[in-house]
Amino acid sequence: MFTVDLNCDMGEDFGVYNIGADESKLMDHITSTNIACGFHAGDPDCIKKTVQLAIDKGISIGAHPGLPDLVGFGRRNMNITAQEAYNMVLYQIGALSAFVQAAGSKLNHVKPHGALYNMAAKDVTLARSIAQAVFDFDPTLILFGAFNSELIRAGEKINLKTVNEVFADRTYQADGSLTPRTQPNCFVTDEVLAFTQVLEMITSSRIKTTDGEYIAIEADTVCVHGDGPHALTFVKALRQKLTEHHIVIQPFGALP
Amino acid sequence: MFTVDLNCDMGEDFGVYNIGADESKLMDHITSTNIACGFHAGDPDCIKKTVQLAIDKGISIGAHPGLPDLVGFGRRNMNITAQEAYNMVLYQIGALSAFVQAAGSKLNHVKPHGALYNMAAKDVTLARSIAQAVFDFDPTLILFGAFNSELIRAGEKINLKTVNEVFADRTYQADGSLTPRTQPNCFVTDEVLAFTQVLEMITSSRIKTTDGEYIAIEADTVCVHGDGPHALTFVKALRQKLTEHHIVIQPFGALP
Amino acid sequence: MFTVDLNCDMGEDFGVYNIGADESKLMDHITSTNIACGFHAGDPDCIKKTVQLAIDKGISIGAHPGLPDLVGFGRRNMNITAQEAYNMVLYQIGALSAFVQAAGSKLNHVKPHGALYNMAAKDVTLARSIAQAVFDFDPTLILFGAFNSELIRAGEKINLKTVNEVFADRTYQADGSLTPRTQPNCFVTDEVLAFTQVLEMITSSRIKTTDGEYIAIEADTVCVHGDGPHALTFVKALRQKLTEHHIVIQPFGALP
Amino acid sequence: MFTVDLNCDMGEDFGVYNIGADESKLMDHITSTNIACGFHAGDPDCIKKTVQLAIDKGISIGAHPGLPDLVGFGRRNMNITAQEAYNMVLYQIGALSAFVQAAGSKLNHVKPHGALYNMAAKDVTLARSIAQAVFDFDPTLILFGAFNSELIRAGEKINLKTVNEVFADRTYQADGSLTPRTQPNCFVTDEVLAFTQVLEMITSSRIKTTDGEYIAIEADTVCVHGDGPHALTFVKALRQKLTEHHIVIQPFGALP
Repeated sequence: MFTVDLNCDMGEDFGVYNIGADESKLMDHITSTNIACGFHAGDPDCIKKTVQLAIDKGISIGAHPGLPDLVGFGRRNMNITAQEAYNMVLYQIGALSAFVQAAGSKLNHVKPHGALYNMAAKDVTLARSIAQAVFDFDPTLILFGAFNSELIRAGEKINLKTVNEVFADRTYQADGSLTPRTQPNCFVTDEVLAFTQVLEMITSSRIKTTDGEYIAIEADTVCVHGDGPHALTFVKALRQKLTEHHIVIQPFGALP
Repeated sequence: MFTVDLNCDMGEDFGVYNIGADESKLMDHITSTNIACGFHAGDPDCIKKTVQLAIDKGISIGAHPGLPDLVGFGRRNMNITAQEAYNMVLYQIGALSAFVQAAGSKLNHVKPHGALYNMAAKDVTLARSIAQAVFDFDPTLILFGAFNSELIRAGEKINLKTVNEVFADRTYQADGSLTPRTQPNCFVTDEVLAFTQVLEMITSSRIKTTDGEYIAIEADTVCVHGDGPHALTFVKALRQKLTEHHIVIQPFGALP
Repeated sequence: MFTVDLNCDMGEDFGVYNIGADESKLMDHITSTNIACGFHAGDPDCIKKTVQLAIDKGISIGAHPGLPDLVGFGRRNMNITAQEAYNMVLYQIGALSAFVQAAGSKLNHVKPHGALYNMAAKDVTLARSIAQAVFDFDPTLILFGAFNSELIRAGEKINLKTVNEVFADRTYQADGSLTPRTQPNCFVTDEVLAFTQVLEMITSSRIKTTDGEYIAIEADTVCVHGDGPHALTFVKALRQKLTEHHIVIQPFGALP
Repeated sequence: MFTVDLNCDMGEDFGVYNIGADESKLMDHITSTNIACGFHAGDPDCIKKTVQLAIDKGISIGAHPGLPDLVGFGRRNMNITAQEAYNMVLYQIGALSAFVQAAGSKLNHVKPHGALYNMAAKDVTLARSIAQAVFDFDPTLILFGAFNSELIRAGEKINLKTVNEVFADRTYQADGSLTPRTQPNCFVTDEVLAFTQVLEMITSSRIKTTDGEYIAIEADTVCVHGDGPHALTFVKALRQKLTEHHIVIQPFGALP
């Protein structure tokens, strides 16, 4: 029997600006949420609201720290040092965790955002700094990272519990990394193809890359996107498809 | 026998910018430090360094949350809502606390900064929001506020431990509030007068205001400034003066 | 015969965040646009796009400078000095004007945003600083402000061309100021009432306040909102209504 | 007879934070200043003050645009697009120019800052975007860039007047680029060596790199640093040394 977690990046509003679908409705269909911490997106008011929503819905809460690049939504690589990475991740985990703690719950996991996530997949020094920040804040936190990434290896090295993340609607390159958002074929736009890709990752531990070849992949958690017009429809359909294939959908770690 | 705490606002560097005297040396002479949390000043790298320094020196660590006004150093009143105040204070306490926790120590107190401190002295709704944020994060935290302020009353109302703060080198107005920084007579520039003012507040619970009249005041902790060319000399001389008058200098709460 | 200008605040996106209706379509129905300059909203990429759109549509371009409060969308009063106001307005006019100039056109007017607009309506010192910044950048610029505001008087005092602005869908208080957004009755939600209010302001120079009494008002330009689901429908209907009443809709100043 | 310009990056204060030596005194010894525009450093109040100072001292004023990375002082490479570079440079030139224009003077040149300067030295697409932004704002502006850089070539390609910049106290690598600040030997710390390096660049058009070999270089303008404890002493001594060697020190472009 296969199990999988469904996670979604949330809390990415800022001030008067809203982004993404109705998070309250989306939360009915996922098992984990990663909440932006105010650097690439989010602000204290948005964090407060999103944390409360996640607690009300009974899903696992993670911190989603990003680069200090609000105008670029944390998607532009920045040449930060390992020490800067450690400090900005620790800061953001603490800020997010305060709202979870004040609401009587407990932070479950950490998943870096955007460029920080991608850089930490390939840069071992950066990866170790981020993993260490998670560990130093709370060694029982779970670290989400891309399968076969330096981030996952860095977490394992210091005995953090790690979770291999895959993406439902992103394409993969031959080296196992995501096709960058700057490339036209970065998304799996066909829903049926996306479902097939997810099922194959979960049940056969493999994925067909943009080269047409299969590579090995582990899918502990599947990231679904909360933005885009069809986000809610997509996640509902994906969940139904997984259930039809007798895949159990459940979060990692204790529920709030 | 009288006791008093000596506190100083620190960690107010930002990026390449330095402000204030040598904090390592200043920390040898104070008992509590309030560390900026990144909104009015400070950044994750600065927080990391300042927290470690305070732990090494064995002084009590407090969070020093401010308004989101970096260019104004948190000194300009902003018309924020009570809910916004709650959220921005909770966010900043959490961020700062993460560094203290990661270093194996524990946050001791919270003291709002600048305009947030002054607004919370007079606005009961704002004061209650801030006190509640402190309480919701950790009900054992100590709340620093001006004597006779709404902030102290708000803390007392929800059974937070509160500490009355006075200023060594600021003048007081007839209503007990600090003379605003925009006024020429806001500072006590004469060192002897400053010492006299501090001693009188501690031992006689009174202060002479800018009107020349005495009003009652409680001095649980004295704030000394870390900026200005004579900061270190001043605090050393103040400490010696207090010791000569057999006043015991000790922090509130457990040491790290 | 009556004439009026129809203006709309635009260019208020930020990074990945979009706000407001389709500005390209809205621009077909207005005669002036006020473009955010990056402090309360907007960023260089958004400015570039919005300026080009306005030039393509042949409408007058104004700078829409705001307070440095992105998370609060420039809607929270801040206790800034007159000198700070001068400098932040001059900075923003220059930044916006650079895009207009690079595109071969010319900036037409300046209209402060949100809290800066409201504070400048009542605070004579602030109003004079803002008017002076406009004048010092280019004395041929037109200053938009609320009827009977200190801002309009400050502009007139230094011989700037001024334009009295009224709002189509906001209610007015007895003193002629807008009902604050924090109050439930701040908007005229009934479209027919909004049209009546606008027609009465243009043709009879009066408006019924929230007290039910009429006060005098001059309507040189009417502000229509670009956000909200019915923005486009509303402005099209308003424009038709004005045309039916033989009111000529035209901008102030030269067209680009 | 040789001539050279002496330029210095200035206006890099932010809010309450000061950086660098006394700029009023430094300006007595240089011929051009590059003023930060608020992205990597500087704010409207600081710009106002620095522009006025430069006008009073009669030195040429340039814009010094940087990356939107205040906490990193614009020194960390960011993966921005060419269009983003164009827009952020145009925005900053306009903002800075507004203060020069309001003071009755005229902007003379543009010199990108830090990581933007270094990236534009090697990335031809970025370089062309930046040069085009300068040109589109005002084709009579002068573009400062490193000798043999893509930025200089991009300026020449569109017929901007370009000026080759060298550094008095930075070491050069074999490929002609500056030794990065992250490396220990990035600075020429010996004053005599620095003077020798400058004289050789001006009079012999060559420089000894960190490899010990000479490479060709053109020195139209020499950058002296305004920060560091000996900034004023250094520039005075450098100026005297140049004068002793009959090198005429004068700015490019018209004086304000």
